[in-house]
Amino acid sequence: MAITGVLRPGHFQMRVLDLQQSIDFYTNVIGLKEMGRDTQGRVYFKTQDERDHNSFIIREADEAGVDFVGFKVADQATLDKLDADLRAYGVHTERIAAGEMLETGERVRFEIPTGHQIELYAEKTDVGNGMPYVNPEVWVPDAKGINPVRFDHCLLYGPDIDGARKIFEDVLGFYLVEHVLMDDGEADLAIWLTCSNKAHDIAFVRHPEPGKLHHVSFLLESWEQVLRAADIMSMNRVSIDIGPTRHGVTRGTTIYAFDPSGNRFETFCGGYQTYPDQQPIKWTFDQVGPAVFYHDRKLNERFLSVVS
Amino acid sequence: MAITGVLRPGHFQMRVLDLQQSIDFYTNVIGLKEMGRDTQGRVYFKTQDERDHNSFIIREADEAGVDFVGFKVADQATLDKLDADLRAYGVHTERIAAGEMLETGERVRFEIPTGHQIELYAEKTDVGNGMPYVNPEVWVPDAKGINPVRFDHCLLYGPDIDGARKIFEDVLGFYLVEHVLMDDGEADLAIWLTCSNKAHDIAFVRHPEPGKLHHVSFLLESWEQVLRAADIMSMNRVSIDIGPTRHGVTRGTTIYAFDPSGNRFETFCGGYQTYPDQQPIKWTFDQVGPAVFYHDRKLNERFLSVVS
Amino acid sequence: MAITGVLRPGHFQMRVLDLQQSIDFYTNVIGLKEMGRDTQGRVYFKTQDERDHNSFIIREADEAGVDFVGFKVADQATLDKLDADLRAYGVHTERIAAGEMLETGERVRFEIPTGHQIELYAEKTDVGNGMPYVNPEVWVPDAKGINPVRFDHCLLYGPDIDGARKIFEDVLGFYLVEHVLMDDGEADLAIWLTCSNKAHDIAFVRHPEPGKLHHVSFLLESWEQVLRAADIMSMNRVSIDIGPTRHGVTRGTTIYAFDPSGNRFETFCGGYQTYPDQQPIKWTFDQVGPAVFYHDRKLNERFLSVVS
Amino acid sequence: MAITGVLRPGHFQMRVLDLQQSIDFYTNVIGLKEMGRDTQGRVYFKTQDERDHNSFIIREADEAGVDFVGFKVADQATLDKLDADLRAYGVHTERIAAGEMLETGERVRFEIPTGHQIELYAEKTDVGNGMPYVNPEVWVPDAKGINPVRFDHCLLYGPDIDGARKIFEDVLGFYLVEHVLMDDGEADLAIWLTCSNKAHDIAFVRHPEPGKLHHVSFLLESWEQVLRAADIMSMNRVSIDIGPTRHGVTRGTTIYAFDPSGNRFETFCGGYQTYPDQQPIKWTFDQVGPAVFYHDRKLNERFLSVVS
Repeated sequence: MAITGVLRPGHFQMRVLDLQQSIDFYTNVIGLKEMGRDTQGRVYFKTQDERDHNSFIIREADEAGVDFVGFKVADQATLDKLDADLRAYGVHTERIAAGEMLETGERVRFEIPTGHQIELYAEKTDVGNGMPYVNPEVWVPDAKGINPVRFDHCLLYGPDIDGARKIFEDVLGFYLVEHVLMDDGEADLAIWLTCSNKAHDIAFVRHPEPGKLHHVSFLLESWEQVLRAADIMSMNRVSIDIGPTRHGVTRGTTIYAFDPSGNRFETFCGGYQTYPDQQPIKWTFDQVGPAVFYHDRKLNERFLSVVS
Repeated sequence: MAITGVLRPGHFQMRVLDLQQSIDFYTNVIGLKEMGRDTQGRVYFKTQDERDHNSFIIREADEAGVDFVGFKVADQATLDKLDADLRAYGVHTERIAAGEMLETGERVRFEIPTGHQIELYAEKTDVGNGMPYVNPEVWVPDAKGINPVRFDHCLLYGPDIDGARKIFEDVLGFYLVEHVLMDDGEADLAIWLTCSNKAHDIAFVRHPEPGKLHHVSFLLESWEQVLRAADIMSMNRVSIDIGPTRHGVTRGTTIYAFDPSGNRFETFCGGYQTYPDQQPIKWTFDQVGPAVFYHDRKLNERFLSVVS
Repeated sequence: MAITGVLRPGHFQMRVLDLQQSIDFYTNVIGLKEMGRDTQGRVYFKTQDERDHNSFIIREADEAGVDFVGFKVADQATLDKLDADLRAYGVHTERIAAGEMLETGERVRFEIPTGHQIELYAEKTDVGNGMPYVNPEVWVPDAKGINPVRFDHCLLYGPDIDGARKIFEDVLGFYLVEHVLMDDGEADLAIWLTCSNKAHDIAFVRHPEPGKLHHVSFLLESWEQVLRAADIMSMNRVSIDIGPTRHGVTRGTTIYAFDPSGNRFETFCGGYQTYPDQQPIKWTFDQVGPAVFYHDRKLNERFLSVVS
Repeated sequence: MAITGVLRPGHFQMRVLDLQQSIDFYTNVIGLKEMGRDTQGRVYFKTQDERDHNSFIIREADEAGVDFVGFKVADQATLDKLDADLRAYGVHTERIAAGEMLETGERVRFEIPTGHQIELYAEKTDVGNGMPYVNPEVWVPDAKGINPVRFDHCLLYGPDIDGARKIFEDVLGFYLVEHVLMDDGEADLAIWLTCSNKAHDIAFVRHPEPGKLHHVSFLLESWEQVLRAADIMSMNRVSIDIGPTRHGVTRGTTIYAFDPSGNRFETFCGGYQTYPDQQPIKWTFDQVGPAVFYHDRKLNERFLSVVS
């Protein structure tokens, strides 16, 4: 198969400070669909257009942040093989039984050297996107809020991003698309990795504290939808960090904003199609400004300092 | 690797009736960059944003149409393996020496049951997209004409599309994304296949004559660029077949038009991201209208009859 | 005042074959807001963003078509003056009492030489656009359907368009923006007139039958909204005449489609800003194709033949 | 006439610190066309799409800022009448002979209570927009840089904005579209005035120093062109003040940036169509943030402090 192994970022579990307020926010402002709740009190969402049962899960906690990121793999045999490959690579893994998450099969969980929990799974119930698989329309008209296309990727902050990269590249088949160097001109400050033709499926920034979340990102269909998203954020008094603007890295257009718990999220569009035979793009430390915010050509203070 | 084997449609060679007129057309109207000519009289083009040396090649002939479609594979070992796999599958292949096409490595060529010549290759010189790999800008300002992002895919007409599909699926790792049924409700009238996350990398329509070309497609960045493309076509008195409009299949937006030789080309944008775990979308024969042209909900006469 | 006299096309009354079906259509597909019904059985609509109580009125009849087009004038004194000016010009006028239409002041009605009923009025209740006049947001989130910005203009078919033009220019202060000549190179086949900076506030095509409607037009905000409108039409099985495409005249982007009664309507965007000191643009008869449909460069059969 | 008196902002003369650097900037980055130079050393520009000979004039000086803003009026009789009306209103006017500016007729100049020089004129040579007045295309393909549609308006800072408003309203026929109140809830901090259907033709902010320029504004065609403008600014290392973003006032989308002399300019798109019968929108002082920058909902420091 041309696409095998890890297919895509499939689910993302995040901590919020007030569950009901967050349900309101993700339902009405972001426009996700609530798909169910489990006995642990977790609430499951998907975008309108996603076909699998859930992609974004929140639970109430004292502190905001990310619990884990899950990647869907091609099938159960792939799951078993990648589990074995991880162990052979020296990564401790654990199995979480099917059904621990709603409508989701068995998961393989492991911690990466940035301190984040990563999961692989092969099964999640196909509930469709509200349109039939025979003779569908092109979109579903009853959208609410920003209405993103999909949970797209996340940017994680932690110390050993080189160690994380090695696992993603050597075991999981990801490849480097872009990177920003530290001021020593050697080490990486930030890396963007993909397992697909998307410009990024996960990204890391070097940061002293482990396990931190910079942002979770939702894909929009067009630059006009980015404007509409910013309008909806303003109408709902969402705190915008920056945007609408464009990244130099991936060329994507973007808004960063904060959810009611202080978790940063991104609504973004674009980014080029990429392939593993293409050489990565490198940004030197003095150009981190245009790399991240191409129009302003400088970072705002919050970008490097505020994480959850 | 998550992406292995066949990476993408990489080159497309087409016959034109008048070489100079076609060079003018593809340079000034489509906005491709001429990259070189060879001793066979072939002229090589790429889009501004493509990084490999060439993707679109024309040669003068008495009849318009497609010579062959080439797919880039991950590396030489993959090329050798796929060659062996094809032979094992009963497909006759031949090797074409490196350098027979400008800046292109060894190719494996074979004919598929629709009567088309398909090629695989692993090497084509990386000449870049006009921006450095260190600290690039987001686009190159001196664009001409329609200025597509890339050669994206083609739609081929021929008799045994089932046989073609089997090779693409069983040997080359493609998967079916959408299909339209014949009026018998069983056989496929049209199939859309991909080896990536793009909604299609190649497509076929069942048609009595072998080896025919319906269209070669160039990707645009946005629906506004589709409008701009239609404007440029009108300014240059290009014969538009249909569009701007939207496909039901892939949801992409599109214009079909004819080059000076009567080869149909498409400038299109969008189409969803797809994955091999997602079930294909099926269109019944009575809904071929909205499947192909979602707004008009009917085919224009030319769509099924005019091929080159 | 820089803008005086006639301000804008303010209301449009149209005949429909089935009232309930049309209410559903204009409410759910076009996305107008129903504002009230009167004792004559007429149903009043406005767009979300219009501030006056109504702009689009339908009544059930045996035949589709236009009843009358109303223009709002600056104030009552202007109404009286224009009434006197019309009479002085030899146009028979009649007064219709305030309140004959819901929330609408006294109207001056007259017939123009194309056989259409035109009205002037100075008062219509300001009901707002759903946002306060103090510290508003930028749009109202609960839109339905296509959700146009405003009733924008109409194109009327009738015999003596020169006579109509003279009244609009000499008495009502409109000016010619563009025109298409007949094949004699002298007379006008079509004229676009405005009383504002909009590229057209009313247009006429020469046609043997008097009093006919080619289309009533609703303004959209962007080319992306034109695509969305076409999608919504397809989802609702609305018969699209042509589009999305662009006009040469006014440069506006457009879709023509038919309501359930066979009345043609347009959803369009753009068109340049114009001023009375700018010379009109002329199209010769052989270029009527690109004048009307810039991309196809030819008229479709229906454009000149199907009117209601 | 429905549109009489003052037609539009027609020319704008600005001081720059280095003439050649500014010519390069306005030609290559903004994409204006140089139309000529006069014996005073002034350089004249127009946008590609403007039809009159010039709209934007620069001259070298020790200090950046605005020299004067000129409005085109309907004809010479209107010019004479408005001159008389201004004098009758107590405004001192002077006549500047035809030809003092290239291809421009006689001008009536006067100072308004904000300390700015305003001009009226009736004649400027129609040189066209690069397309014929018979059978034109829809745009001219050889655009450079940002390529705005037109010089649209300016925002001036000065002390007595009430006095300026009275002249624009009482004598020149402008009307108030939006205003922001001071913290006393009575006086205006900022006013947006128009003589047309455009959401603003001139605007003022109350400021202690007279005769200051906040920005000169160029119109773009779409939100995508706003993105493209920001990209071009970044490529050319233009200092962006803020944007792309949206104004609450007028709902227009915008970028503010600085020319090489420190003059702020705006590239903006949109803004609703307005009419003199519509009540103005009011913003209270505590909502000046969303009024000016709808997404961020707060002013950046520079907006109120940096003027030229």
